[in-house]
Amino acid sequence: MTQDTHQGIVSFVSSGPGDPELLTVKAVDRLGRADAVLYDDLSSGPILELARDGADLVGVGKRAGRPSPRQDHVSRLLVDYARTGQRVVRLKSGDSGIFGRLEEEITALKAAGLGYEIIPGVPSACAAAAAAGIPLTRRLTARRVQFATGHDISGTLPEDANLAALADPTAVTAIFMGKRTFPGLAAKLIAQGLPPDTPALLAESVSRPDQKLTRHSVASLAEALARETGDKAGLIFFGPLAEE
Amino acid sequence: MTQDTHQGIVSFVSSGPGDPELLTVKAVDRLGRADAVLYDDLSSGPILELARDGADLVGVGKRAGRPSPRQDHVSRLLVDYARTGQRVVRLKSGDSGIFGRLEEEITALKAAGLGYEIIPGVPSACAAAAAAGIPLTRRLTARRVQFATGHDISGTLPEDANLAALADPTAVTAIFMGKRTFPGLAAKLIAQGLPPDTPALLAESVSRPDQKLTRHSVASLAEALARETGDKAGLIFFGPLAEE
Repeated sequence: MTQDTHQGIVSFVSSGPGDPELLTVKAVDRLGRADAVLYDDLSSGPILELARDGADLVGVGKRAGRPSPRQDHVSRLLVDYARTGQRVVRLKSGDSGIFGRLEEEITALKAAGLGYEIIPGVPSACAAAAAAGIPLTRRLTARRVQFATGHDISGTLPEDANLAALADPTAVTAIFMGKRTFPGLAAKLIAQGLPPDTPALLAESVSRPDQKLTRHSVASLAEALARETGDKAGLIFFGPLAEE
Repeated sequence: MTQDTHQGIVSFVSSGPGDPELLTVKAVDRLGRADAVLYDDLSSGPILELARDGADLVGVGKRAGRPSPRQDHVSRLLVDYARTGQRVVRLKSGDSGIFGRLEEEITALKAAGLGYEIIPGVPSACAAAAAAGIPLTRRLTARRVQFATGHDISGTLPEDANLAALADPTAVTAIFMGKRTFPGLAAKLIAQGLPPDTPALLAESVSRPDQKLTRHSVASLAEALARETGDKAGLIFFGPLAEE
């Protein structure tokens, strides 16, 4: 995918979950040579210190659940920077290909005839599971792992979610950005047959100093989140999770 | 999870797909300080050159599909090394939590009272998708991504696979170690309603010099693999994959 054109090159750099030590060697290299770094709120912090001295650091402030004009704005900004001929890093948290709105930005670059490369990274779900000591797959009991999102464009639970697939008690499921909608999702999954006492885990601030991992059942997590008013990002796991 | 005991510490280090530049900074650090590195066939090669000079490099030769005594042997070897008080790296390809038989080795260490840490990494599926320019999730058309295995302990297709979940044309699916069993799986998925012309991708030697990415439909990939006799590892994707 790498095209070294006269019009600069965009590197989509996956930042991993937040700990700078969980960046790949390649990601560190690209940050160290960037002229401009476009970053989201979620991937900011100490990782930006790895950018080349003098690089433009541009917060594009994308947050989960915003309507699409905001994404158009980010894509336009990305194209504008790339057109100046600079080395542009588009920093995305976790792995850029997983719930990172990567496609929209690729499409914009392609339409503008601009080259890019994608540098994969550590998905936040893998980092959270490692921190909790939970293998995402288990030889006999969890031979499928799935990642789904807790909200669609409007910020609500996707109406077309495959509930039967998500309610499968033999798969490990990770729900991204799903804290607010989980009480509703849990009710639907339990109605589909998922046992309410299925093990669950809430992972917040994964790999950061304030990392918090909380063991639950699906039912107790839904109850706890129904009472919670904060909007902190979090990852929810449920299924045949290994014990601590 | 880190416990610095007198009896040494085991670091489960995820090596990523094969390119040394796709190791995390933390993984490189652990390799550089290891007294012993236990590695599988799949994660060997240039990554081992990152190990500390003088470190024992121990090929444990685990291959997909071997029966469990082999795994017992690896776990026993791991415990034996850790008991010597050395810094032991257990190198696992991709992300160690995904189809890496991590749980068996954790269980063995726990039973022996030995400490360990898990360092997450870039799953081979994320690296393959990045190389192919395919985001694993898409805002409107692919809000679920799932990883499943193409064989169970006996080397055949898992009998209890959730075919309805895997045949969902709105999810992106990656089948690990599934080249040999894919013709059979594809027939079952098509019988479940997956359109035969669903886009598919075969990714081999991801991130290595001989990387090969081949676009297919589900039906044409099944046909091609039915004729193939080699046993090279490969990752299979299908679903609403983005175009090139």
